[in-house]
Amino acid sequence: MGLAGSAALPLLGKAALGIDGKNAGTAAAQPLSVGVAGYTFAKFDVDQSIAMMKRIGVMNLSVKDIHLPVNSSDAKIKEVMDKYKAAGINVYTVGVIYMRTKEAVEQAFQYAKKVGVNMIVGVPNYELVDYSEEQVKAHDIRLAIHNHGPEDKLYPGPKDVYDHIKNRDPRMGLCIDIGHATRAGYQPEKAVKDFKDRLFDLHIKDVSLAAKDGKAIEIGRGAINFPALVESLRKIKYQGMCSIEFEKDMTDPLPGIAESIGYFKGVVAAEA
Amino acid sequence: MGLAGSAALPLLGKAALGIDGKNAGTAAAQPLSVGVAGYTFAKFDVDQSIAMMKRIGVMNLSVKDIHLPVNSSDAKIKEVMDKYKAAGINVYTVGVIYMRTKEAVEQAFQYAKKVGVNMIVGVPNYELVDYSEEQVKAHDIRLAIHNHGPEDKLYPGPKDVYDHIKNRDPRMGLCIDIGHATRAGYQPEKAVKDFKDRLFDLHIKDVSLAAKDGKAIEIGRGAINFPALVESLRKIKYQGMCSIEFEKDMTDPLPGIAESIGYFKGVVAAEA
Repeated sequence: MGLAGSAALPLLGKAALGIDGKNAGTAAAQPLSVGVAGYTFAKFDVDQSIAMMKRIGVMNLSVKDIHLPVNSSDAKIKEVMDKYKAAGINVYTVGVIYMRTKEAVEQAFQYAKKVGVNMIVGVPNYELVDYSEEQVKAHDIRLAIHNHGPEDKLYPGPKDVYDHIKNRDPRMGLCIDIGHATRAGYQPEKAVKDFKDRLFDLHIKDVSLAAKDGKAIEIGRGAINFPALVESLRKIKYQGMCSIEFEKDMTDPLPGIAESIGYFKGVVAAEA
Repeated sequence: MGLAGSAALPLLGKAALGIDGKNAGTAAAQPLSVGVAGYTFAKFDVDQSIAMMKRIGVMNLSVKDIHLPVNSSDAKIKEVMDKYKAAGINVYTVGVIYMRTKEAVEQAFQYAKKVGVNMIVGVPNYELVDYSEEQVKAHDIRLAIHNHGPEDKLYPGPKDVYDHIKNRDPRMGLCIDIGHATRAGYQPEKAVKDFKDRLFDLHIKDVSLAAKDGKAIEIGRGAINFPALVESLRKIKYQGMCSIEFEKDMTDPLPGIAESIGYFKGVVAAEA
């Protein structure tokens, strides 16, 4: 490749060198991209969410129906997506979308198509997983099923998701919510390895206790071992997003979101 | 030591196991304590500062004269210190205090004594360093001289401090401001090693550029290599505080403080 090849390396940019471009050194270092799950901004509108994302410097978003309803008109979808685009925000998926009827499954895939994403984070009822797989194939849109903790009758932990999709189309996978998974008795650093072949997305957060009663807390203050999680993500060469879903202080979440993102980025930088 | 010795380990508590108690594993792991330099809260009063410290969960403070003037009456000192005490905040030093006259040096040491700290972070004029040393000896209170960047005519970088104190009483030392040091051409991860025998305190922050024009920015977004810094601090078995001094968005600093503290804690946890 000669000089041109060598000269190209500095042009790879921050993304290729990991989230902060420091200490990565070689192209072999694994990027870990950080995002936000839209539920974090449940108490705020689209403009307020955008302002908070800019403030924390995180530009990947999983859009929640609170900010863009699944039954939105084409005009509404364009209006909201134009706002994100103008702000430089990359909408990489939609969800979490609950699918309790065949119509809801169809609606979710139509919505994802119009929004322009190739993945849905969703929760289909068991009897709709067959039909969801049909839709995945028909639209070539991936479905990452989300676990919701010990209270969830469908998918309390990642294994409950995995068992429903492991023999299906490879575009059926998991969005592991590491907080709910921890409350359901899983160690996130182990779960991401156990289900690595179908791990599409991650909702990152911390919980005060590794038990059902664990409460949402700033990342780094709780029970989850983030250095071990990041080490596992590097080992499995995870290519998806690490999207923070912060569910504490929901009417005044910015300091907690910022601390959480900071902590996660610090761990990623130190282990680069 | 038998059973009693083994059983004692879990009783060491969080402080002995590093700032978050995770991943440290052995008593050999070096604790790195996090604090705040009072100038961070320059636009806020004592009560507002306390509320922000509680929110970010950092309970070590270097009190700045903005919040407790050096000429305060005994009653005023008691009033303010009682507030910190009631909030569980450990005031570990006072400063940065500028000392441009002999009277100012005396006043600073009297103030430190009344506040009840055993260290002053200060900036004595060159011609007052002799007298400062006398006061250090008379009161058995340490003096950590603070560097202030390329604009500073007295102490632009840590070597300018070190050269003035290296042959003096061992209670004369440095508070390295890593942001100003970086702007003055130092690498913090090298500076803390070079001056380790006199390193008493640290003001941690990040700067957008490793140059005079570098601006204050959230820790992790700038030019300073925090993983390398933390590695150096562990190597020299640094026993002092790492106090964030955040100088961006000073009228609305909480998200930036939180992100910065989160990042630093994440690096520390990952390298424990």
